[in-house]
Amino acid sequence: MLVQCLYASRATTPVDDAMLQGVLEPSRERNMAEGITGMLCYTDDVFLQILEGGRTEVSQLLTRIMRDDRHSDVTLLVFDEIDERAFSDWSMGQASLDKVNPGHLLRFSPRRQIDPFNGPGHVMLAMLLDLRAHGGIVSR
Amino acid sequence: MLVQCLYASRATTPVDDAMLQGVLEPSRERNMAEGITGMLCYTDDVFLQILEGGRTEVSQLLTRIMRDDRHSDVTLLVFDEIDERAFSDWSMGQASLDKVNPGHLLRFSPRRQIDPFNGPGHVMLAMLLDLRAHGGIVSR
Amino acid sequence: MLVQCLYASRATTPVDDAMLQGVLEPSRERNMAEGITGMLCYTDDVFLQILEGGRTEVSQLLTRIMRDDRHSDVTLLVFDEIDERAFSDWSMGQASLDKVNPGHLLRFSPRRQIDPFNGPGHVMLAMLLDLRAHGGIVSR
Amino acid sequence: MLVQCLYASRATTPVDDAMLQGVLEPSRERNMAEGITGMLCYTDDVFLQILEGGRTEVSQLLTRIMRDDRHSDVTLLVFDEIDERAFSDWSMGQASLDKVNPGHLLRFSPRRQIDPFNGPGHVMLAMLLDLRAHGGIVSR
Amino acid sequence: MLVQCLYASRATTPVDDAMLQGVLEPSRERNMAEGITGMLCYTDDVFLQILEGGRTEVSQLLTRIMRDDRHSDVTLLVFDEIDERAFSDWSMGQASLDKVNPGHLLRFSPRRQIDPFNGPGHVMLAMLLDLRAHGGIVSR
Amino acid sequence: MLVQCLYASRATTPVDDAMLQGVLEPSRERNMAEGITGMLCYTDDVFLQILEGGRTEVSQLLTRIMRDDRHSDVTLLVFDEIDERAFSDWSMGQASLDKVNPGHLLRFSPRRQIDPFNGPGHVMLAMLLDLRAHGGIVSR
Amino acid sequence: MLVQCLYASRATTPVDDAMLQGVLEPSRERNMAEGITGMLCYTDDVFLQILEGGRTEVSQLLTRIMRDDRHSDVTLLVFDEIDERAFSDWSMGQASLDKVNPGHLLRFSPRRQIDPFNGPGHVMLAMLLDLRAHGGIVSR
Amino acid sequence: MLVQCLYASRATTPVDDAMLQGVLEPSRERNMAEGITGMLCYTDDVFLQILEGGRTEVSQLLTRIMRDDRHSDVTLLVFDEIDERAFSDWSMGQASLDKVNPGHLLRFSPRRQIDPFNGPGHVMLAMLLDLRAHGGIVSR
Amino acid sequence: MLVQCLYASRATTPVDDAMLQGVLEPSRERNMAEGITGMLCYTDDVFLQILEGGRTEVSQLLTRIMRDDRHSDVTLLVFDEIDERAFSDWSMGQASLDKVNPGHLLRFSPRRQIDPFNGPGHVMLAMLLDLRAHGGIVSR
Amino acid sequence: MLVQCLYASRATTPVDDAMLQGVLEPSRERNMAEGITGMLCYTDDVFLQILEGGRTEVSQLLTRIMRDDRHSDVTLLVFDEIDERAFSDWSMGQASLDKVNPGHLLRFSPRRQIDPFNGPGHVMLAMLLDLRAHGGIVSR
Repeated sequence: MLVQCLYASRATTPVDDAMLQGVLEPSRERNMAEGITGMLCYTDDVFLQILEGGRTEVSQLLTRIMRDDRHSDVTLLVFDEIDERAFSDWSMGQASLDKVNPGHLLRFSPRRQIDPFNGPGHVMLAMLLDLRAHGGIVSR
Repeated sequence: MLVQCLYASRATTPVDDAMLQGVLEPSRERNMAEGITGMLCYTDDVFLQILEGGRTEVSQLLTRIMRDDRHSDVTLLVFDEIDERAFSDWSMGQASLDKVNPGHLLRFSPRRQIDPFNGPGHVMLAMLLDLRAHGGIVSR
Repeated sequence: MLVQCLYASRATTPVDDAMLQGVLEPSRERNMAEGITGMLCYTDDVFLQILEGGRTEVSQLLTRIMRDDRHSDVTLLVFDEIDERAFSDWSMGQASLDKVNPGHLLRFSPRRQIDPFNGPGHVMLAMLLDLRAHGGIVSR
Repeated sequence: MLVQCLYASRATTPVDDAMLQGVLEPSRERNMAEGITGMLCYTDDVFLQILEGGRTEVSQLLTRIMRDDRHSDVTLLVFDEIDERAFSDWSMGQASLDKVNPGHLLRFSPRRQIDPFNGPGHVMLAMLLDLRAHGGIVSR
Repeated sequence: MLVQCLYASRATTPVDDAMLQGVLEPSRERNMAEGITGMLCYTDDVFLQILEGGRTEVSQLLTRIMRDDRHSDVTLLVFDEIDERAFSDWSMGQASLDKVNPGHLLRFSPRRQIDPFNGPGHVMLAMLLDLRAHGGIVSR
Repeated sequence: MLVQCLYASRATTPVDDAMLQGVLEPSRERNMAEGITGMLCYTDDVFLQILEGGRTEVSQLLTRIMRDDRHSDVTLLVFDEIDERAFSDWSMGQASLDKVNPGHLLRFSPRRQIDPFNGPGHVMLAMLLDLRAHGGIVSR
Repeated sequence: MLVQCLYASRATTPVDDAMLQGVLEPSRERNMAEGITGMLCYTDDVFLQILEGGRTEVSQLLTRIMRDDRHSDVTLLVFDEIDERAFSDWSMGQASLDKVNPGHLLRFSPRRQIDPFNGPGHVMLAMLLDLRAHGGIVSR
Repeated sequence: MLVQCLYASRATTPVDDAMLQGVLEPSRERNMAEGITGMLCYTDDVFLQILEGGRTEVSQLLTRIMRDDRHSDVTLLVFDEIDERAFSDWSMGQASLDKVNPGHLLRFSPRRQIDPFNGPGHVMLAMLLDLRAHGGIVSR
Repeated sequence: MLVQCLYASRATTPVDDAMLQGVLEPSRERNMAEGITGMLCYTDDVFLQILEGGRTEVSQLLTRIMRDDRHSDVTLLVFDEIDERAFSDWSMGQASLDKVNPGHLLRFSPRRQIDPFNGPGHVMLAMLLDLRAHGGIVSR
Repeated sequence: MLVQCLYASRATTPVDDAMLQGVLEPSRERNMAEGITGMLCYTDDVFLQILEGGRTEVSQLLTRIMRDDRHSDVTLLVFDEIDERAFSDWSMGQASLDKVNPGHLLRFSPRRQIDPFNGPGHVMLAMLLDLRAHGGIVSR
């Protein structure tokens, strides 16, 4: 059973390159082996991540994230059974939301700053898919 | 929560460039800061304005307009929760409806003159979106 | 409130150019002023006319037609509230149905001759919109 | 082809019993013979009538009404092809809208007075069907 | 054109009986004359009001409320064109939300306290209709 | 924003009354304060729990569960934004699935034993709602 | 493959009891054997018959009817593949439409006389099903 | 009233050019005059014909076919009221199904041979429209 | 994953009580253990069986049936993934279709004899559910 | 009646070219004669085959497969009545799923390895249609 999951969290220390690689590197091989795909978006202090994969594997990864002290206020936004992945070619894309044109954020948000902890989950998901379609992603 | 609002009002003094700038200028910075986008259309004596933004911010702006003596007969035509803005790139567009080809108005109105105080709100909104699509807007 | 109306009638005298202009000319200015648009189709002895405009104005024009001795058997085929006109650029188009390729009529009719007094109104309307799309209209 | 038609008109002289019978009596036999059914509602100065029957017969009756000097401002509100009549048991019901509980009118109208010349036709029709269902009809 | 409007506001002084009558009394006759119906709900410091009526009349009343110093943070939640009123029998019902069983609020809210400034407008409207159906209204 | 969440987990020690009260008691007051409602179902070694409440509160509770050593293999089955709770009257119902008529389980499962880690989440949710409707719940 | 068929025809000699039995008797046993069910309605000079059964059997029966000199102007009104018969309990019901309350006919017809050769087939079918539901059938 | 009809029949003598012209020629002028259009497909021993036109005219033609000794086992497959013809430009197209690529038949049939007497009528119709779209028609 | 399966087969020897028990008895315990439910219908020479259960278990049972020499011409009619069983209370119901009122069969069949090898699978399924609802089942 | 069937099975001996031809060759002529089309996919030890054709013919072929000792664990995934084949040009395509880009499998599967015995049948079917569209098929 394939699922798609979107969550938001606050970083307990400022997000910089070192911290980010510390988050992404260790899980890369495991994600690959367990068939997890998706996209990690971040600002200075917020993570917003789409996870796709088997229901068991995504639930296990979500458990690791909820236990990880680098994340606080982990908040589920979307969790759906799907027939087909949207990110089957992405082991885990990255996007710095601070570098995105604020106009892109404004299309889906009340303000120019992103606030994933408010508003419906499907709108936040639509914003991320729109970002990917317009090329604001650093790497896969 | 994003909303889209359309209202019509009568100008208590004739609308000219000075008056118009008096209406638009002071709110420009505030709108920008509060994430308000939209379009202001006008004739000699009528305003017709689309406002998009957070529900709180749009309600506050509507309150300022209803308290503003330059407007009378402020009448709500459309107020909807939306997932996505239609005017995310427009801090506040302007369009003089007196300069528009009357044929454009006729497509949505019984007469060649615009009368926003009658007829369904969604038809008036369709007319404004049609105007924007056909390029009758002075500036953003 | 915008409406679209289609009616058929029989001409009490044979339809020729003089008669036709007698029907169209006097109402041209009035239609323009009252925001009436549409299309008048005719054969030797039948009128088939689409009227668009405000509900009041279209009802008044329909009353004048029903009182006009040049028309008999005035029969309503379609009367609908609409959001948008189909003929906003046409003060009143004309089309001689006798000059139309019979194959066009056959697509919507049991026979090659037009018989607007039978069959559903929306089929007759579809035939007229198809004729306009394929260019069989004399003038606007 | 069965149709249902709703129109409103203004009475050119005050509506009283004598006037009403003058309107209804002469047409009673003809309506019966031509298969016309429906309901005539009225106030002091307004008629609101539902007509059901063959398209030809209803169009002829509408023509007679539009030519009748006792009616002015005849305005079409609804004209639809139907599969089944709503008033097959009514040769022509009557209802004095002045005697109706104003609360009934208010459910479908902005004000306690009836104003059939404004508002969508299908709302006016819903009000009349609601009146019939709640028994405000004088006779059939 | 009938509309239904729901707004929330904060009371600038604590809501008690005297204050409430000061709000309701003066407008009672005017509402009656202008065909306004609906329901006013309140807690110690919040108003939540449904207004139904003609679009012009409801817009005028909303303007008076937005100008009234007893209200602050007036926030629109719902504004829709409707065919039929839900409160045609209510000149203006009243309901003290502090006296309502918290379980009723919980059905539609994250917490046992009401917070109309968050959450979708149609959910708040559903809660009020549910309250009315279960009899928590003081008077009409 | 209200959400409804269903998850399954394995108990790391056999589920008995003492263990169950150890799970439920400490959270009772907190759930009440935070507006969490729902139902906890269990067998000898499996938990299956519906959580309803604000999105933030449910996410926090889910985080505590994922960090709780009495649960392993926590697996999300359903997570949806809802307009209305299904369990607004239940601070946290309990149901021993071992005591349920196996025929009830069979209606939604391939075998007479429950296996929440397989099959679509909405089917497992339908089974629990069916159980509640047929009275297999111990207490609220 | 089950089908339902409705046709109308004119009787070449006046319909009386003898003629009717001449039409129905010879086919009774054959219909039974071939699984044909339905209803035969008639006036002085018109037949209107619903036939249900296998597609082959209904087509063969229709061929016999079209070759039968007692019928002229046989006109197909409805021919549909169906999952379930409406007349599975009727070897062949009979109904004299001349004995039916004219009000029943009027509900579906422009006039009090039945005219099956005009109007949509599904309306004629609805009229016959309505007749059966209201008990106007002589025998099965 | 326009209808579309599809039937299949068996030829009582082998179908060859002479026989085919004997079938088509005599009816050509009559079909033209009566507004019949469509397509005749055939194999060595089967006819499959689409007829479009007025309901009366198509019923009369079907009666002539059912009485024609060159056809046996005439079986109705489709009979529908339509708004628009699919073959308005075809007085009567012809297609030899024996010359068609068997792959085309296989798309809609269990076997490479055509067997119109089995299977749903709308599938046989879809096959013929597909054939026409791919150019397997001899002449119009 | 729950599935529902309907197949028909021919019995290679006449169906009598001994033969039937030979078919049903040995599988009773196994079906119970494997969570198979459903209904076996039969005539003198035909079996028609609904199987519900896990996809694996139903496929295994179907394989055993297809390998069983007492069945020939095993033909699949319906195979669907389902959320909920229709026969959760039936280990395996039995129904002799020879004892059923032929009128019941006729409702869904061209003839009074049952012929499950022709016609759409969902119609045969509807017939069996209709039989169960009307009580023609011998035992569970 | 056309059907489309998808099943999975395990090979009882490793799948190699010789074994594969042993499976495909003998049935080639028979499939052609019986109008069976489709696609056979395989890995080292799993078969996944789409079969299209008449319901009788596909059921017979499925019976042969279920009786064939080279297959074990034959599991039905999809069985639907269809109007049109998807593989009418394919006597029996072949595709080695081991040679397919794992990314293609990942789009529809929790892991990079194919596991047809889990997950909904329509998702497995979508994966095979996607493979065909992207050209991973060896021969027809």
